[in-house]
Amino acid sequence: MICNKVLMLIFDGMPDRPVEELGFSTPLQAATKPAMDAVAERGASGTMDVIAPGIVPGSDTAHLALFGYDPFKYYSGRGPFEAAGVGIDCKHGDVAFRCNFSTVDEKMRVIDRRAGRIKEGTAELAKAITGMKFDGIEVTFKEATEHRGVLVLRGEGLDPRVSDVDPHEQYAMVQECRPLSPEAKLTAKVVNSFVRESHRILAESQVNLERASKDLPPANIVLPRGAGALNRLERFEARYGLKASGIAGVSLLKGVFRILGFDLVDVKGATGGLDTDMSAKGQAALKALGSSDLVAVNVKAPDITGHDGDFAGKVAVIERIDKMVSEVVKDLPSDVLLVMLSDHSTPVSMRNHSADPVCIAMAGKGLRVDSTEKFDEISCAFGVLDGMLGIEVVPRVLGVIGRAEKFGA
Amino acid sequence: MICNKVLMLIFDGMPDRPVEELGFSTPLQAATKPAMDAVAERGASGTMDVIAPGIVPGSDTAHLALFGYDPFKYYSGRGPFEAAGVGIDCKHGDVAFRCNFSTVDEKMRVIDRRAGRIKEGTAELAKAITGMKFDGIEVTFKEATEHRGVLVLRGEGLDPRVSDVDPHEQYAMVQECRPLSPEAKLTAKVVNSFVRESHRILAESQVNLERASKDLPPANIVLPRGAGALNRLERFEARYGLKASGIAGVSLLKGVFRILGFDLVDVKGATGGLDTDMSAKGQAALKALGSSDLVAVNVKAPDITGHDGDFAGKVAVIERIDKMVSEVVKDLPSDVLLVMLSDHSTPVSMRNHSADPVCIAMAGKGLRVDSTEKFDEISCAFGVLDGMLGIEVVPRVLGVIGRAEKFGA
Repeated sequence: MICNKVLMLIFDGMPDRPVEELGFSTPLQAATKPAMDAVAERGASGTMDVIAPGIVPGSDTAHLALFGYDPFKYYSGRGPFEAAGVGIDCKHGDVAFRCNFSTVDEKMRVIDRRAGRIKEGTAELAKAITGMKFDGIEVTFKEATEHRGVLVLRGEGLDPRVSDVDPHEQYAMVQECRPLSPEAKLTAKVVNSFVRESHRILAESQVNLERASKDLPPANIVLPRGAGALNRLERFEARYGLKASGIAGVSLLKGVFRILGFDLVDVKGATGGLDTDMSAKGQAALKALGSSDLVAVNVKAPDITGHDGDFAGKVAVIERIDKMVSEVVKDLPSDVLLVMLSDHSTPVSMRNHSADPVCIAMAGKGLRVDSTEKFDEISCAFGVLDGMLGIEVVPRVLGVIGRAEKFGA
Repeated sequence: MICNKVLMLIFDGMPDRPVEELGFSTPLQAATKPAMDAVAERGASGTMDVIAPGIVPGSDTAHLALFGYDPFKYYSGRGPFEAAGVGIDCKHGDVAFRCNFSTVDEKMRVIDRRAGRIKEGTAELAKAITGMKFDGIEVTFKEATEHRGVLVLRGEGLDPRVSDVDPHEQYAMVQECRPLSPEAKLTAKVVNSFVRESHRILAESQVNLERASKDLPPANIVLPRGAGALNRLERFEARYGLKASGIAGVSLLKGVFRILGFDLVDVKGATGGLDTDMSAKGQAALKALGSSDLVAVNVKAPDITGHDGDFAGKVAVIERIDKMVSEVVKDLPSDVLLVMLSDHSTPVSMRNHSADPVCIAMAGKGLRVDSTEKFDEISCAFGVLDGMLGIEVVPRVLGVIGRAEKFGA
């Protein structure tokens, strides 16, 4: 009679604003998307602020909120999520950074922030600089995709309130890491020691000698940024009583899933890019529902088209996603509550995340059905779920599937 | 592609309740107001509780909320806002009071709370009693409009939790100022000293001798009320990154603007009364948009008709304001987001502020447009902005113009 499992389809950055070239429709309004609209029609809809009114959500903070974790309480920076995304489990007390392999000249000026978008040899470079120790602090470094990497500091007395070493622009000087709070002096000192020492080691590495011989910019330094520490958090299953699995192409979101204790489902062809195999993601989600109570799938493509300012591309991506939704709905067991939502809007007119509310629609047995018939930014605002916050999604979903806590007698 | 400036038109006390004499329409529903309705039609609308459900907003607390400052945190009494309105900048630690020049008899009974609505000579009276010092506390007194004045105490150890000296009714005795908290003993003592000493000085003043000769009641005492201290607050521009200007006829609202660091725009003919020159206010606002990111205009007239219980007058005032809106819209640059809203409802049936929600409508490039077609208390409740709080207006506006902060990555 009621659902007892949940499938969350998270359409990254899908909501938008009226687009002049689309006759002042939003891409969601302009797209042909019968499957999504059918979900809105046979279910309950709303719009919501994912974090709070007037806050532009990041991908990481938004996903924390959508899984029921207040980002103001649990988030201090992107580092630990990136680290988790490449398989390093941060502990409470660790400080983690995102890094780039970059190219600097002899004056420590940044010649190329991405070292020619280096793709090969980064595992070898990472191996050469990981495992150092400064002032009693252990340093772990691991390569991520392409020119990216992750730095994790572990030991007593660390604090994430430090400035970036990465100057964030080409031809600028490498920055000293500065403590932004007196408690962070040790952290800054260790970061500076690591940057100096790794520069010395990388400059002489075999990988860079070979790059030089091919006229490629050397990956001769690592530039940390985005320091963060992981606040103690209760895993999703312990907190909400649901065994959860997550599917995502991008490493940052894999990191969010890992940190919350989701099982990561690897899907062949799920890249986190525009070329991602959406059908494969949908089928993997259906399969994961066999052994999980909640499966969350992030579909990154609409966000990419938003960042590109590509309104036609966004419409096309929405229509491809609709096909995936239609395939999923066809085979969805009748005890699964389907929840479609987004982590934030990425309007093509802004080429960036915005504070505009996102759409949510749920369908499944036992749900109160409203009269919303379309899944878009305006139609959903007139549904029964309107006015929610992102952090309320999981509690409300628990309510629908009869797993919410009773308070009182 | 998106707006980057903001014009806020604040229609003071405009929302109302169904009025029997208007066929149970509200004045907003009964008025012919094509310009306001057009804004609602081409934009997004809602109704909102300016402070919180069931809280009747004052003008000062409401405006604080509408500019993004939680009045529960920043407001302790009207005094500092009145003081700012007459040009006295309170510092953190000062305690300020609104005052009346009043007439007392020899038993200290209040014969006339407004000293015959004295209009002339108050500057001279104020000069005679300002600059005193009691227990190390400096006392500043300044006249305001008509019988009104402002008292500011400055020094160590002050606290605003004291009772009013003004008994608030005719023929009652002047009250001792009592500390309402042990920390406020010094403040109460200084207030009582000031009231006694100023009574002695005023009673013998030349102004009052002349009034006596004309059979006018003497302004022979000052009665403080509404003690307040100014909590530290960050100026609007520092807090939100928008350079702001404010236009208001009434002194209290000028005070709010000053305290938040708005540029005050003086408009000839803008009186804060029913005779105010609305066109001039609208034109001044358009001009101020040249050098400001946000311009706020308070139009007081609808509140006055509400307090007067004058439903026909309220309809007429709304129609006059609609003309102003039409003039403004005609010349509004296309990069300006227009926001129409109110600080509170002032129903003619209550002759006072009420806790009823107010209407809000925004229009401008990039905004998601809903199907609301009228600017009134019922139509707006079905718009996409419904269910807001006053304190969310500025964050949401920042979101629309792409100036909201990103949280996370």
